Amino acid sequence: MNFENQLEQLGLILPSPAKPAGSYKPCLIVDNIAYISGQGPLLEDGSFAKGVIGKDIDIETGQKHAQKCGLAILSALKNEIGDLNKVDQLVKITGFVNCTSDFTQQPLVINGCSDLMKEVFGDKGVHARAAVGVNSLPLGFTVEIEAIFKIRL
Amino acid sequence: MNFENQLEQLGLILPSPAKPAGSYKPCLIVDNIAYISGQGPLLEDGSFAKGVIGKDIDIETGQKHAQKCGLAILSALKNEIGDLNKVDQLVKITGFVNCTSDFTQQPLVINGCSDLMKEVFGDKGVHARAAVGVNSLPLGFTVEIEAIFKIRL
Amino acid sequence: MNFENQLEQLGLILPSPAKPAGSYKPCLIVDNIAYISGQGPLLEDGSFAKGVIGKDIDIETGQKHAQKCGLAILSALKNEIGDLNKVDQLVKITGFVNCTSDFTQQPLVINGCSDLMKEVFGDKGVHARAAVGVNSLPLGFTVEIEAIFKIRL
Repeated sequence: MNFENQLEQLGLILPSPAKPAGSYKPCLIVDNIAYISGQGPLLEDGSFAKGVIGKDIDIETGQKHAQKCGLAILSALKNEIGDLNKVDQLVKITGFVNCTSDFTQQPLVINGCSDLMKEVFGDKGVHARAAVGVNSLPLGFTVEIEAIFKIRL
Repeated sequence: MNFENQLEQLGLILPSPAKPAGSYKPCLIVDNIAYISGQGPLLEDGSFAKGVIGKDIDIETGQKHAQKCGLAILSALKNEIGDLNKVDQLVKITGFVNCTSDFTQQPLVINGCSDLMKEVFGDKGVHARAAVGVNSLPLGFTVEIEAIFKIRL
Repeated sequence: MNFENQLEQLGLILPSPAKPAGSYKPCLIVDNIAYISGQGPLLEDGSFAKGVIGKDIDIETGQKHAQKCGLAILSALKNEIGDLNKVDQLVKITGFVNCTSDFTQQPLVINGCSDLMKEVFGDKGVHARAAVGVNSLPLGFTVEIEAIFKIRL
C-alpha cells in the first residue's frame, strides 16, 4: 500500500505546513517516534476554521474540521520526513473539541480525523485515541488534534 | 507479585471491554509500549456514569467513577495482551474531569484511578500523571482517563 | 553547552520539587524517556499561582506562570536524574490554560514555558507542543504543563 498514492486517489491535498503559533516545532522525532504538535483546522487559504461546536458549528462541519486537522498533521509529518510511506503506524491521537458544556458528541467529531487516517494508511492508520471537550482553543479553533506516529527512518 | 491474583484478592472484576465510541482501537501497542484510549466510567450494566462534578456529582462519587475508568483501562489492556502479568510498569495516566468552573479538586477525583493502579501493581503501578478539568466529555462521562503502560511481550 | 550553567547564567532558580497532589510520581522514567507529571505555577513560597486567564489574570502574567510551570518541570526532572546535563532532548509539552471561553491566546501563554526551555537547552529545548484552554485546573492553577524528555542515563 502506497500512502502517498492513497492520498492522491482519495482526492486529498495536503495544506502547506502551518506556521507554529509559538516557540515550538510542528513535528519532533525521537528515535523512531514522531510527535506532531496540536494542529488546528487549516483551510485552503491558510486561515483556520473558528467557532464553538454545539453553538455556531454543527457536528458535520466539526467532522470536516477534524479532517482538516488530520491533513495538517500529515502535512507537518511529511514536511519533516519527506515521504508518508515512511509511516509504520499511527499510534495515538488526542482530539480537543471547542464546544458548549452540553455537547457530548466529541467522538463523532474526532472521527473526521480517525476515518481519514484509516483511509490513508489502512490498518496502519487505526490508532489509540482520546477525545475531550474544552471551553476554548487557540485562535478560536473549532478542533485541535495532536498525534504520535511510529516511523521508519 | 501476581497482578491477576491481586485484582481477584481486591474483589475487583474487570468489565467487558467497552466498544470504542469511534474509529479507533481501545489499545494500541508499539514496541513495548501500550497506549490505552481514553476510557469512561464503565458500569456493570455496560452503560457509563454521566454528570458534572461540582454540580450533580460529588467528589467521592467522582473517585469511584475514576476507579471505574481504571478498570476499563485494565480491561482494554488485558483484552489486547491476554494477561496483566505482562505489565512491566504503568508509565502515565491523563485524567479529564467533567466539572464546573469553580471545581478544583481534580487530583482527588483522579486518585480513584491512581490508587487502584497502586493496589493492583504495587510499585509498578505508581505513575506520572496529569489531571485537568474540562467543560464536557463524550456521552456526558463524569471522568475520562487514558494510560500508557510498558509491557513485556 | 552546560545546561546547569545555562540556568544559572539566566538567573533562574529551580523551586523545591512540588509534592504530588495525589497518588503519583512527579517524574517517571521508562527506558530513556522521562515523563513529567502535570506541574502548576509553583511560587517561591511553595504556593501556586491561581486564577482565570482572561478574567482576573492577563496574558503577561500567564506567561510568567507558564515559565514557573517550566521551572517546576525542570525541578521534578532534576530531582529524579540528578543533573540536567543528562537531557538529550525535550520531546513534547502539553499546556493547559485555565481561561474564559472567549480567551484564545493560549499559545502566547504557553510560550512562557517554551521560551524557557529554548533558553536553557538551546536546540535541544525546541519541542513539539499542544496548548489548549480548559474551564478549571487543580487547586485553581492558572496554567498546568506536562512534559516528555529524552535523557541519557
